[in-house]
Amino acid sequence: MKAVRLHDYHQRPTLDDIAEPEVSGPWDVVVRVGAAGLCRTDLHVMEGQWEPLQNPSLPYVLGHENAGWVSAVGSAVSNVAVGDAVIMHPLVTCGLCGPCRAGEDSHCENSTFPGLNVDGGMADYLLTNARAVVKLDEGLQPKDVAALADAGVTAYHAVRKAVPLLTPDSHVVIIGAGGLGHIGVQVTAALTAATITVVDRSEQALELASSLGAQHTIRSGNSGGPSDDDEIVRQVADVTGGGAHVVLDFVAEQGTEVFGPKLLRNRGSYFVIGYGGALQLPTLDIISREINVVGNLVGTYDDLVHLMTLTAQGQVALHTTTYPLDAVNDAISDLEAGRLTGRGILVP
Amino acid sequence: MKAVRLHDYHQRPTLDDIAEPEVSGPWDVVVRVGAAGLCRTDLHVMEGQWEPLQNPSLPYVLGHENAGWVSAVGSAVSNVAVGDAVIMHPLVTCGLCGPCRAGEDSHCENSTFPGLNVDGGMADYLLTNARAVVKLDEGLQPKDVAALADAGVTAYHAVRKAVPLLTPDSHVVIIGAGGLGHIGVQVTAALTAATITVVDRSEQALELASSLGAQHTIRSGNSGGPSDDDEIVRQVADVTGGGAHVVLDFVAEQGTEVFGPKLLRNRGSYFVIGYGGALQLPTLDIISREINVVGNLVGTYDDLVHLMTLTAQGQVALHTTTYPLDAVNDAISDLEAGRLTGRGILVP
Amino acid sequence: MKAVRLHDYHQRPTLDDIAEPEVSGPWDVVVRVGAAGLCRTDLHVMEGQWEPLQNPSLPYVLGHENAGWVSAVGSAVSNVAVGDAVIMHPLVTCGLCGPCRAGEDSHCENSTFPGLNVDGGMADYLLTNARAVVKLDEGLQPKDVAALADAGVTAYHAVRKAVPLLTPDSHVVIIGAGGLGHIGVQVTAALTAATITVVDRSEQALELASSLGAQHTIRSGNSGGPSDDDEIVRQVADVTGGGAHVVLDFVAEQGTEVFGPKLLRNRGSYFVIGYGGALQLPTLDIISREINVVGNLVGTYDDLVHLMTLTAQGQVALHTTTYPLDAVNDAISDLEAGRLTGRGILVP
Amino acid sequence: MKAVRLHDYHQRPTLDDIAEPEVSGPWDVVVRVGAAGLCRTDLHVMEGQWEPLQNPSLPYVLGHENAGWVSAVGSAVSNVAVGDAVIMHPLVTCGLCGPCRAGEDSHCENSTFPGLNVDGGMADYLLTNARAVVKLDEGLQPKDVAALADAGVTAYHAVRKAVPLLTPDSHVVIIGAGGLGHIGVQVTAALTAATITVVDRSEQALELASSLGAQHTIRSGNSGGPSDDDEIVRQVADVTGGGAHVVLDFVAEQGTEVFGPKLLRNRGSYFVIGYGGALQLPTLDIISREINVVGNLVGTYDDLVHLMTLTAQGQVALHTTTYPLDAVNDAISDLEAGRLTGRGILVP
Repeated sequence: MKAVRLHDYHQRPTLDDIAEPEVSGPWDVVVRVGAAGLCRTDLHVMEGQWEPLQNPSLPYVLGHENAGWVSAVGSAVSNVAVGDAVIMHPLVTCGLCGPCRAGEDSHCENSTFPGLNVDGGMADYLLTNARAVVKLDEGLQPKDVAALADAGVTAYHAVRKAVPLLTPDSHVVIIGAGGLGHIGVQVTAALTAATITVVDRSEQALELASSLGAQHTIRSGNSGGPSDDDEIVRQVADVTGGGAHVVLDFVAEQGTEVFGPKLLRNRGSYFVIGYGGALQLPTLDIISREINVVGNLVGTYDDLVHLMTLTAQGQVALHTTTYPLDAVNDAISDLEAGRLTGRGILVP
Repeated sequence: MKAVRLHDYHQRPTLDDIAEPEVSGPWDVVVRVGAAGLCRTDLHVMEGQWEPLQNPSLPYVLGHENAGWVSAVGSAVSNVAVGDAVIMHPLVTCGLCGPCRAGEDSHCENSTFPGLNVDGGMADYLLTNARAVVKLDEGLQPKDVAALADAGVTAYHAVRKAVPLLTPDSHVVIIGAGGLGHIGVQVTAALTAATITVVDRSEQALELASSLGAQHTIRSGNSGGPSDDDEIVRQVADVTGGGAHVVLDFVAEQGTEVFGPKLLRNRGSYFVIGYGGALQLPTLDIISREINVVGNLVGTYDDLVHLMTLTAQGQVALHTTTYPLDAVNDAISDLEAGRLTGRGILVP
Repeated sequence: MKAVRLHDYHQRPTLDDIAEPEVSGPWDVVVRVGAAGLCRTDLHVMEGQWEPLQNPSLPYVLGHENAGWVSAVGSAVSNVAVGDAVIMHPLVTCGLCGPCRAGEDSHCENSTFPGLNVDGGMADYLLTNARAVVKLDEGLQPKDVAALADAGVTAYHAVRKAVPLLTPDSHVVIIGAGGLGHIGVQVTAALTAATITVVDRSEQALELASSLGAQHTIRSGNSGGPSDDDEIVRQVADVTGGGAHVVLDFVAEQGTEVFGPKLLRNRGSYFVIGYGGALQLPTLDIISREINVVGNLVGTYDDLVHLMTLTAQGQVALHTTTYPLDAVNDAISDLEAGRLTGRGILVP
Repeated sequence: MKAVRLHDYHQRPTLDDIAEPEVSGPWDVVVRVGAAGLCRTDLHVMEGQWEPLQNPSLPYVLGHENAGWVSAVGSAVSNVAVGDAVIMHPLVTCGLCGPCRAGEDSHCENSTFPGLNVDGGMADYLLTNARAVVKLDEGLQPKDVAALADAGVTAYHAVRKAVPLLTPDSHVVIIGAGGLGHIGVQVTAALTAATITVVDRSEQALELASSLGAQHTIRSGNSGGPSDDDEIVRQVADVTGGGAHVVLDFVAEQGTEVFGPKLLRNRGSYFVIGYGGALQLPTLDIISREINVVGNLVGTYDDLVHLMTLTAQGQVALHTTTYPLDAVNDAISDLEAGRLTGRGILVP
């Protein structure tokens, strides 16, 4: 089969002919790939940033946001059958460790991560397992949902954790309405009656956020200096009547992690979803305002199930641009050059 | 009446003769003081550290941890009567603002704070209100509980918030078994079946912690360097089988705020109760481990009610040294010099 | 002033001239009534059903769903000022008892209930207190919201308690889309992404429910016999794929309390909001399915605040018919005869 | 191997020689049985009461409370190894269905129940799977813990669900301090600081309850009439200062389901754990007091893990009487005749 493989860091992947994966274990599932998302994490993989964390054996197949149709199943698989349209949770989990037993499978102690540490989905076929596959509603196509497998489920997970903190009188501030953030806006609007304010550097992103349910938007300057921060804090305090109950930071680098916690009112919670920067919070500030910092990893399997339901209901939608599998390097070039609007999707 | 008043920052308070406070408003309560706790916050007040935050009009009466007997009540007061033994919540709250309505009265938007911004309890009488007074169980004496009014309720509040995170299989690490921390150990043992590990620089504090319910103790070195931190992290990982579910940091300065978050396992929560340092946490660390930072202020009125019940049941006890009111400067000197064992209590 | 007073049970109230209420206590608030809702509870009051529970001294003024403008305030009132448009929480609470301290003021141990045990709002002026008044958003008029003061806040309270049980994959069944139920549909649609199925005897009520956000409707027969129940259970099982996660029963009499719990799937919760019937549930059924029964009283003050926000946002709306105060007996006759569409509102 | 098999309802089981179970599927685990609990459910099984619910093919092996040592494992089993001492969760679950994914495996949609619908543990060997086995702490022996597998985990599960409702000021009333209830007392004392009151007909059970942590005991009469109920309600109101916050009913038949809900204060919750009777609750009573009824099935796998930790810590202990496997009918006779003190344990 055709597969997009990375042979060396700092080099472009190549389209190789390799053997199709086969079912060997009882819980194995082989999926004919219908769509594989391309995202900035793939750029970071190629740059070698994930090597120390995931340590894959090169060469291997890229692609960690995958959907398609089941083509073969192991002897113990009962939840899907050949031909079913499915989306894959990014992790292939064990079902036996403590986190899996508690429904927190995104912290599985024995997982693999196709596309990051084993062969991924930028290929004709992908090997996964019964615990990773979510059947798609009739109305959903793999190419329309693949990019929700990782980015979407991460945004959903964070918002779902924030829901118990949000009443109709609450204010949510969403920092960054890009790939993850614009899903976060849609999910927040679907799950709560809170008032949504979006902060972003891009006027275009703010317009999109407004069309998706944000009541207020605030454009952050490009200077990034302290005075710019003060201005954002002041505007948010105005709009929210004294600060946000919840801040969802989909950026968490380049300075948002500095002004983000300042947007909270007393007892508020700052959700970290993006990454790259470092918090620098005086403990006096944390206790005198009794604020919280909440970490957010990718969502669980159940989060993905719920997100697919929202998508089938039309409450979450993605903008995408599709490429054939052999145009992977065009897609990468477009992504690097900022020419790719919406999420890039490779279709084998 | 006699009262310990601060006339100027960086000077010792003096014992003055001033007019007794009187009931004027309908919710007012005047209490004959039975005991007033002395703590490091009083030292910080004298140093002027709280001036910009609380901005009291000098001279004023010190004393923010108070208990005694009701001597007069306003027309609308129905929950206590003259003669009742009471302990005072440190804040005098309004009952009308959003936080008060939600049972989060420690964030009252219209509160006063006797001993910090209005006259406190180091005097024969104290003015407070109906919403601040908790009736004492018959078995409890003001001098035995006064120091629980602020330090105790802060420790209880943090532990109470941690309880939902703690199963019999959970590990709690308590950093600092001093004034607040040794109450935290007792409350954790009373409210949960989790395993308690205490980290402290002092061998004496660790022995006390063991006697109060800690299953494990780890002595932190005095070097405070990175290698010392690594050793604590290693020992905690050993004892807890991979990291704590909850860390309660009663210090949060002098380096504990650096190694504290490292003691967590994935999905763990770092509770900040002490203050003075500054968190420096990479957002990548926060999201990849999905950890949380939880701020903790003083507890609510209900927290104080519950703490009094635990105290009446014998599950929480304080070590104290009492001084007559006119020996306040001896008590201050003993506290500064480290000669004061347990909490210092002034008895008018 | 003019006031609608009940002089004897089983007799119509009369429009009397009585003295205006005055501020005497520090927390008192006198409100010029803008609108007072009329509801079936008023009929039950006239029939003497509430006499043993509330034991009012006759004659007294009816009206427990009130809104208007502040006309005088006591010395301690800081949260409203003369002229403010306000809606009244039905209970006048103390702020000192255990439930009030915990934010559960609808269980205040020292409350009065205007219109049920002291003079209510079918009059030119009403006496209430600072803890009962919620300021109205500029866009809201007393006559448009008065009926939300009791019926609305009860519906909101129940739905708010159900929210933590509801994911986008959950099914809610709402029994009864009348006065409370049609608000319940709107609040459920605003606060969750769950799928809503409404069961009602009236085709008109089902049509209204659909227009307010219900995805499915099921008409219950008028026979009320067991076979009819089986049919409802079967239809709900079909629509929900095996039973509801939450049932909100706004009727809870005349047989709905019999089939209601049967609509649940395992681990589901049956919320009782209406009343009149009696549950008859085998304990084996309760444990083998691990189902819950959740009681619901009127909401808290904060619930009313949130409901007013939803109303100001346009997410909750009431159908009303207004009458002048001296036409109260026409309104009562219309309500008794089923001629009153929407909620009846008396305007002094 | 030797096995205790039921050949017909209403007849005693016989000790048969049958083939040992073998590993066939990848997740299978065969356990050499160290101990199998005997309980009243076994009597009900023999009486045919469970036939319509579980529908086993006769003859089959009894025994649903099992512990022992792993003797063989399937190819996919990674969490236990041959020789490990283990206790078995009563259900053999799938890990793929909705409840399993959410950590609610006691509601697995594809489970088997050894001893009730497939061969159980009153035999030399038992077939189970990787998801059912919990490794035992070094200090625990199969014969000491087997009876916790079903009775114990049910009691733990109910108490664990009640913990969030219980502060140090709360009152728990436990009805029935027998097989499950006396474990419930120990778990409540270990997990909370609430005050425990036990109601039982047996003076001996009340004495045991006191020794295990109950602060108050109330003996219910044997008349079971309404006046007896009133007396219990009165005594509980006295002891609890107005009613229990939580009632744990381990009986829920023979009248306890009638007086049980009356023991609650407003906003209280009545936990149904035993079964046999039927609730008869007016909906007016449910809403006016805003009380809840909470169903409780057997616990989850994680509940069993936590219970084993409490047992290893010495916080939970069982009284047992052991019999060799071939004395099963002596054990049954002793159980039927009330001669069996503590739980009966069969040791192959």
